[in-house]
Amino acid sequence: MAVEIRFCRRCGTPTEQHIPDMEDRLRPCCPNCGYIDYVNPINVVGTIPVWDEGGPDERILLCRRNIEPRKGYWTLPAGFLELGETLGEGAARETREEAGARVELLGLFSAIDVVHVGQVHVLFRARLLDLDLEAGPETIENGLFTIDEIPWDELAFRTVRRGLELWVEDHRSGSYAVHTEAVG
Amino acid sequence: MAVEIRFCRRCGTPTEQHIPDMEDRLRPCCPNCGYIDYVNPINVVGTIPVWDEGGPDERILLCRRNIEPRKGYWTLPAGFLELGETLGEGAARETREEAGARVELLGLFSAIDVVHVGQVHVLFRARLLDLDLEAGPETIENGLFTIDEIPWDELAFRTVRRGLELWVEDHRSGSYAVHTEAVG
Repeated sequence: MAVEIRFCRRCGTPTEQHIPDMEDRLRPCCPNCGYIDYVNPINVVGTIPVWDEGGPDERILLCRRNIEPRKGYWTLPAGFLELGETLGEGAARETREEAGARVELLGLFSAIDVVHVGQVHVLFRARLLDLDLEAGPETIENGLFTIDEIPWDELAFRTVRRGLELWVEDHRSGSYAVHTEAVG
Repeated sequence: MAVEIRFCRRCGTPTEQHIPDMEDRLRPCCPNCGYIDYVNPINVVGTIPVWDEGGPDERILLCRRNIEPRKGYWTLPAGFLELGETLGEGAARETREEAGARVELLGLFSAIDVVHVGQVHVLFRARLLDLDLEAGPETIENGLFTIDEIPWDELAFRTVRRGLELWVEDHRSGSYAVHTEAVG
């Protein structure tokens, strides 16, 4: 979203900032072919993958990032939703790609607006089906943490922190809600 | 999303289809400046605005569309999420723009994947604060319907139908869940 849109993607003509008919805001418009280059928030989808939830060996899977931004910090497996998949399919795909993990989705858990970067972060609760994990190219290593071991000071993003905070709260209360909120 | 991407939006150079580093799918890439033109699903946000919910004058607000597609059919107020706003802010804005209605949001209700058009439709339950409504330019007329009057055969989109079906079911059961599903 940070890119400055100067040319029409469809015909290559320099765009002009206009307010399209029936709208109220400036958009890059093509004076040649009429294409309007809409830029909208995008969805980041991921999971909170848990092994043996409620059991004696309960652990949360986190991935240590192998890419910038925040390389070396811990994150939940997540990434951009792609065309051709549902929110849940994207969340499961990212979990597979980043952690090599297979999960069963247990339901939508949170949708956190990250307005200043034009993103919505959507997390699903998930059950790890096995511990046969393998860090993908974007991950330095996988880690399995008890609630008391969560590396709060080494988390990559505020949305990851917030997602985990909400999960721990709900987990302790014994029931999971669906959370919507914004982080600044 | 239907547009064919032929030129770099940043520098105007013809793009080429490549698989970027660490990725697994073709994207339009600029051979000159390196810009990758990602196209991702976008969010449509709206409300299910209800007057006097649970009371004797209970009514659901629908808007008759003044624009294509599905001009003349009834819809819930909804539209594309914009940069600079949260899901809830976008849903309330669309409700104001299309119906002239002021609402209090009561919580996330559904996130329906519409995979074949690259959209996620997100609905919030909402309380109409007054009946001082005014159809916006995209709306022919507003309508207030009891549950028994919902014009099921004149609804604009399958996601609107599905959102209303889920709402009616939950309403009758006495408690609202958050729904995620896909429509074909």
